[in-house]
Amino acid sequence: MSYSVSLSELLESIGAKEGSKLSVESQDRMYTGTLMPHNDFSNGDVVILKVSSGYNVGIKISGDSAVRVLEGPVHRAGKDIAVETKDGLPNIMLIGTGGTIASYVDYRTGAVHPALSTSELVNAVPEIRETANISARVLFSIFSENMNVEHWQELAKTVAQEINGGADAVIIPHGTDTMGYTAAALSFMLGDVPKPVVLVGSQRSSDRPSSDASSNLMAAVRFCIKGNTAGVFAVMHDTLGDDSFAAHAGTRVRKMHTSRRDAFRSINAAPVAHIDREGNVKTVSAGRPITERKAVARTDMEKATVFLQYYPGMDPSLFEDIVMKSKGIVISGSGLGHVNENMISLIRKACENGSVVVATSQCLNGRTNLNVYNTGRDMLSAGAITVLDMLPETAYVKLMWALANSDDTDEAKKIMLASIAGEMSDRRTADV
Amino acid sequence: MSYSVSLSELLESIGAKEGSKLSVESQDRMYTGTLMPHNDFSNGDVVILKVSSGYNVGIKISGDSAVRVLEGPVHRAGKDIAVETKDGLPNIMLIGTGGTIASYVDYRTGAVHPALSTSELVNAVPEIRETANISARVLFSIFSENMNVEHWQELAKTVAQEINGGADAVIIPHGTDTMGYTAAALSFMLGDVPKPVVLVGSQRSSDRPSSDASSNLMAAVRFCIKGNTAGVFAVMHDTLGDDSFAAHAGTRVRKMHTSRRDAFRSINAAPVAHIDREGNVKTVSAGRPITERKAVARTDMEKATVFLQYYPGMDPSLFEDIVMKSKGIVISGSGLGHVNENMISLIRKACENGSVVVATSQCLNGRTNLNVYNTGRDMLSAGAITVLDMLPETAYVKLMWALANSDDTDEAKKIMLASIAGEMSDRRTADV
Repeated sequence: MSYSVSLSELLESIGAKEGSKLSVESQDRMYTGTLMPHNDFSNGDVVILKVSSGYNVGIKISGDSAVRVLEGPVHRAGKDIAVETKDGLPNIMLIGTGGTIASYVDYRTGAVHPALSTSELVNAVPEIRETANISARVLFSIFSENMNVEHWQELAKTVAQEINGGADAVIIPHGTDTMGYTAAALSFMLGDVPKPVVLVGSQRSSDRPSSDASSNLMAAVRFCIKGNTAGVFAVMHDTLGDDSFAAHAGTRVRKMHTSRRDAFRSINAAPVAHIDREGNVKTVSAGRPITERKAVARTDMEKATVFLQYYPGMDPSLFEDIVMKSKGIVISGSGLGHVNENMISLIRKACENGSVVVATSQCLNGRTNLNVYNTGRDMLSAGAITVLDMLPETAYVKLMWALANSDDTDEAKKIMLASIAGEMSDRRTADV
Repeated sequence: MSYSVSLSELLESIGAKEGSKLSVESQDRMYTGTLMPHNDFSNGDVVILKVSSGYNVGIKISGDSAVRVLEGPVHRAGKDIAVETKDGLPNIMLIGTGGTIASYVDYRTGAVHPALSTSELVNAVPEIRETANISARVLFSIFSENMNVEHWQELAKTVAQEINGGADAVIIPHGTDTMGYTAAALSFMLGDVPKPVVLVGSQRSSDRPSSDASSNLMAAVRFCIKGNTAGVFAVMHDTLGDDSFAAHAGTRVRKMHTSRRDAFRSINAAPVAHIDREGNVKTVSAGRPITERKAVARTDMEKATVFLQYYPGMDPSLFEDIVMKSKGIVISGSGLGHVNENMISLIRKACENGSVVVATSQCLNGRTNLNVYNTGRDMLSAGAITVLDMLPETAYVKLMWALANSDDTDEAKKIMLASIAGEMSDRRTADV
């Protein structure tokens, strides 16, 4: 945006554009990388290259520097790319949805936009091409806070198509804000999907020096190839360093920090596997093995489902209209899953109305149990059901799915009370 | 409930009742403790004594056993008690509210009732009397999920009264479900309270062998006496063992597990102090010292305040009525504090209507920042404010207080944007 006149002229004369691959010789050092947008925090005589490690380097250009264009810019439009395939390598399909992992910083405003194409993302991690035949398509280009039920449905259908079309694994670059919700949705919609389906995100945009985009993507690829585990997962940094990654079950994962690289955590379960920097995959618990079955996407969802966190002072009359309009209500209750005594009559009314009310806990860790205290017993007798150690957000997604994939309320409740995608530990009879 | 006939007759003949202090000699061992209700899981020839360590012991009574009544039962009614005071010891007032810490198991149903009086609780921890002059009064006897704004107000007023009446510290046995919310409410209502005000709870009822009631209470007393820190705190187990306790700032503490003893965590801050088993208090950060000022309770709260967790698929039209009826709206958003683009117009409408909308993060850990992504910038321009690393639940309580203790919306926002009880880290200008 604000190169010096001389640097600006130099870049123009050699045909260097944002996204071009350049070699730059400056002060006896040689750099090769992709030209990034200039930012206003850098001097006008500095170019920023994304080098092969994924890091960005600022290089001062003087009269002695030699700047050459090695390749033209990668086309920025989010088109599907096809690359040469190598025999014997697994075929991995990347389905882009947007998010920080596929975004860049607009240096005018400092804001991050979801605009880098998935192909650019792949190009940024050259070692991927040595381990797998990667194809990529962009399904959406949105921030994950804007993902909604229709996006989940389209995504699940596309994943099934790609698997049935020959993909050995599907990787979904996804914004981190709602990655846990999408992972849960795909887990229920895709059921016993025969291949690994891995969501991967980034807490720092991919043109930032500290971006975790490349390393998370590479770890996801390695888990797909070496994990031999079918199902829906999220692969993200496990630690603050670049040395360990975790594969989390899609129904157990939750974003537990706004910004740290290791924000994603399995709650009430261990991660499925850890992936180290050298690409070794250590599976913690034996999962479902990969098979050659067909993938089926059952994508119906009951959208008249709400999620409410209980809090002291919560006024049942204020929430009555919402609750009575909903076929499914998930309450993130206090402690073992409680609400106050005033809310119980509203729960009863909703249940009598044919709705399903599911109690979860805002503690997140541990398991709900409505048999210990009178409040809980009253909730059970009002018709609420409880789902042990299922995450509140996962229960919300599952309830939408259970209501749409059952003939009646009783069947929907039965679906809620059984673990179908690792979302819940064994039910003890006493808790039903 | 189901002693054997012979044991039942024996207990009756010597006048032993539930709550009587007994000595029991059986199989060459001598036990002294309080007779607990018999439970149906024990044989009919077993008595259960709570011994001085706080643990319950089941003792088989045979023909050879000698059972004696040492003291009659403590009166079970929840009356204020006055005990002899010793010169030189600090005066600590216990204000009972109910909860597991002051509850017992009904062995008929297996449910837990909030019925033990605070005086019984004190009697269960004899070493307390050696370290402080304890007075106790029962303000409520409810489960904490039923605590509401009026309870907070009455509690804050009572705490101020007791401090102004000579208490060197106030300890509040409280249910754990909503202890964090009450701790936040007292933090704002009592402001720069000159003495320690400590909430203490129990994850297991006090007549259970594994109860943490006594040890948490004792740790609270020690923190009051040796911590030399004024303010509102929660003292609970720090680890799974009985060897460490933490004092958490009332605005930073959150119940993060349904059942574990170490469920309570300071979020986005270190605990204020740790207390070890020997009663040593290690203060982590220098707090406000204890002074002789008067305590003031500013208890006004704006009850037209709602707490909503954002989730994908959240329908603004469903929530419009609730939002427009509320003067304060706290949203626990995704990631850095986001909602979807459809919710932004509802935020704008609420702000134009003179309401205050506060964005927090459902990640809990980390800090909100609405300047990074377009979604956040749109939320700011719609009028939302963000409160960095403040817990969503604390923000809800604070917003009720800020709205009721300000002349207009702008002043309420200013109160929200400044840390007044340690609830938020320093604000960086960029985030305002």
